[in-house]
Amino acid sequence: MCEVADTSKPRRIAIIGSGNWGSAIARIIGTNTLKNGKFDSTVQMYVFEEIIDGQKLSEIINTKHENVKYLPGFSIPPNVVANPDIVDAGKDADIFVFVLPHKFVRAACQPLVGKIKPTAIGLSLIKGFDITPGGGIELISNVINKLLNIDMAVLMGANLAGEVAAEKFCETTIGCKDKEAGKLLKELIQTDYFRVVVVDDINTIEICGALKNIVACGAGFVDGLGYGDNTKAAVIRLGLMEMIKFADVFYPGSKLSTFFESCGVADLITTCYGGRNRKVAEAFVKTGKKIEELENEMLNGQRMQGPQTAEEVHIMLKNKGMEERFPLFTAIHQICQGNLPPTQMINCIKNHPEHV
Amino acid sequence: MCEVADTSKPRRIAIIGSGNWGSAIARIIGTNTLKNGKFDSTVQMYVFEEIIDGQKLSEIINTKHENVKYLPGFSIPPNVVANPDIVDAGKDADIFVFVLPHKFVRAACQPLVGKIKPTAIGLSLIKGFDITPGGGIELISNVINKLLNIDMAVLMGANLAGEVAAEKFCETTIGCKDKEAGKLLKELIQTDYFRVVVVDDINTIEICGALKNIVACGAGFVDGLGYGDNTKAAVIRLGLMEMIKFADVFYPGSKLSTFFESCGVADLITTCYGGRNRKVAEAFVKTGKKIEELENEMLNGQRMQGPQTAEEVHIMLKNKGMEERFPLFTAIHQICQGNLPPTQMINCIKNHPEHV
Repeated sequence: MCEVADTSKPRRIAIIGSGNWGSAIARIIGTNTLKNGKFDSTVQMYVFEEIIDGQKLSEIINTKHENVKYLPGFSIPPNVVANPDIVDAGKDADIFVFVLPHKFVRAACQPLVGKIKPTAIGLSLIKGFDITPGGGIELISNVINKLLNIDMAVLMGANLAGEVAAEKFCETTIGCKDKEAGKLLKELIQTDYFRVVVVDDINTIEICGALKNIVACGAGFVDGLGYGDNTKAAVIRLGLMEMIKFADVFYPGSKLSTFFESCGVADLITTCYGGRNRKVAEAFVKTGKKIEELENEMLNGQRMQGPQTAEEVHIMLKNKGMEERFPLFTAIHQICQGNLPPTQMINCIKNHPEHV
Repeated sequence: MCEVADTSKPRRIAIIGSGNWGSAIARIIGTNTLKNGKFDSTVQMYVFEEIIDGQKLSEIINTKHENVKYLPGFSIPPNVVANPDIVDAGKDADIFVFVLPHKFVRAACQPLVGKIKPTAIGLSLIKGFDITPGGGIELISNVINKLLNIDMAVLMGANLAGEVAAEKFCETTIGCKDKEAGKLLKELIQTDYFRVVVVDDINTIEICGALKNIVACGAGFVDGLGYGDNTKAAVIRLGLMEMIKFADVFYPGSKLSTFFESCGVADLITTCYGGRNRKVAEAFVKTGKKIEELENEMLNGQRMQGPQTAEEVHIMLKNKGMEERFPLFTAIHQICQGNLPPTQMINCIKNHPEHV
C-alpha cells in the first residue's frame, strides 16, 4: 500500500537543531501549534547533546523549558520536547524544520535516511552553501532534498535570533513551490510580530542568505577605511547588483521582486550595519591582524561566513571566466585572502560594469 | 530663422544654486568642463546674494574660490564664475543644472522665462515635491519644464554633499529620456570617484528622492522606540514597497529596476541611517517635544522634509481612498501630526498588505 499524506490528521513537527536561532523559532512553533488544530501540539526538537554543569542540555530544556546555553532568558513552550535522538525526533514527522550550522547538515541528516515519512516536507532555515567536490556550491535545501528525498522549502529574512526571541516586530520570507504547503508553513510560522511573505523563488532566497555575508565584509572594509555613508551605500548597492547577477548566471529564472523581500534588501541592510561579518571586516582593516586571529578574539572561535563564501563563489566565477563581471565579490575575496590591501577595494569597483 | 542646437560648439553650463550641494557639484562640473572639449570651460553659477562679514558672497567665491558659507574648506575651480544675476548667468546656457531648495524653484526660475535658449536642457538635483493648488503634488522637473519649456533630466542618489566634496567614492543616478543627452550629462558629471548610471525612468527617480524622507521618519521612530535591527530593516523594506506602489499608482510605467539604482535603495539606506529626518524623528520619540521645536533646536531652523512630504502624500492617498494600502506612510503622517502616539506605528503595519 502506498503511503499518502493524510491531511485530516494534525501534522507533526520536528525541529532539527536547537541553537540560538533554533530555540527562537521553537518558541514560535511551540506557541502556534498549541493554537492551530492543523498541527500536533507536541513538537519534537532534536538537540545535539551537551553536558552543562553536569546536566544534559536536553534534560535542562525539558525541565527548565529554557535553552540555558544558546538562548538564555527566554522560555521555550513545554509542548516542545527536546530529544537527543534525531531518528526518534523525526519519527512520524510531517514537517521538518532544519536549523543547524550548515557544516553539520550532511552528518546530522544521515541517520534520518530511510527513517522518515516519504510524504514529509522540509523547511530549511540554514544559511550558507555546501561545497561540491568539483569546487562549486550547492544550495543547502538541495543537499537535504537529495539526501532525504523530501520536498524542501526555505525561510530567510532580517531575523537576528535574539530580537525574534524578544518578540520585536520583523518580517521573514518563506520560499515554497507548492501553494498549499506554503500556506501551511505560513500558519506554522507567522505570529503577530513575526510576519511572513511566501514566494516560490526558493533558490534566490537561499542565494541571498549566503551572498549577503560577502557584501557585509565589503561594508566592514568601508567602515574600517573611514569612508562615509555614500561609499557604504554604494558598496551595498553594488553588492546587491552582483547578488542579482550571480543568481541570474548560476540559477536562471530568479525574480527581481524576490530581492525586495525580507530575505533580500532587508537582510542585506541588517547584515551590513549589524552582524559579525561587518564587525570583523572593520577590525581587519583597523588592526591589520589576520582574519582567523580576529575570529578567535572577537567571535569566541566562531567563524565569519563571508570569507569562506567569497572563496566558494570565486571558484565558481573563475571556472566561468567571469571575475571581471563581479569586481566587488572578487576584490573582497582577494582582500580576505591577503592578496590585496583593503585600501584597493574602491579602486577595483571604480569601473564596475554597472557604471558602463 | 529657427534656432537649432549647434552640436559643434562647446556647450555652456549654468548652475542655478550655490548651497552645500550646489557648491559640491560645481567642483565636479568645473573640473570636468576644463578637461572635456564638448563643454565651454567657463561655468556660470547663479548665487543668491548674501553679505558675509561685509562682503558679497558672489565676490568671495570669485576671489577666494570657495563658498565659505555653504561648503567651507573646499575649493571651487576658478572657471566657475559666481553670478548674482540669474538672467545673466543663464544667458546662452545650453545646460542648466538646478540645485536650489525646492520651495524657491518657482520664484528663482520666473526671471528666466523667455530669456533662455529654446534648445537648452535642464538637469534637476532638487529633491521634494511641489504642491499643486488642488492639494496634490507635482514633480519639480515638471514644474521647471512647464515654466521654462525645456526638456528636463534629473540626478539623485546616495550623495551627502560633504562626502562628495571630499571626493569619497559614491554613485548617482541620472534620469534622462533622450539617449544622446543622457550620455552628454554623464560626461559632464561623472568622475573617478562619482559614478553615474543613466536610466530613462525620470519620474521614479524623483519620487524616490522625495518619498525616502517619509521612510526615514519611520526609521527614526523605530530608533527612538528602542527596537532593534530587524524591526528597522522591516520598516525600511515596507517603506520601499510603499514607494514602489506609490509610483505604480500615481506614475504608472515606472520600472522595478530603477529602485535598485543609487536613487532607490542606496539613497534610502543612507537616509535611514544618517540623515536629519531620521535624527529628528528619533528625538521626537525620545523627548516628546514637537517637531517644529526640534527643528529649531537641532537643525538650526532648517525644516525636515519627511513630515511635509508625508502630508502631501496623505492628501493624495486620501483623495483616492487608498490610505489602507499605504499603512506605513499613513501612520508616519499621523504620528508627525500628533494624532497617533509613535508607539502605535508598529501596530499599524502588523497587517500590512504585503503580508497578506
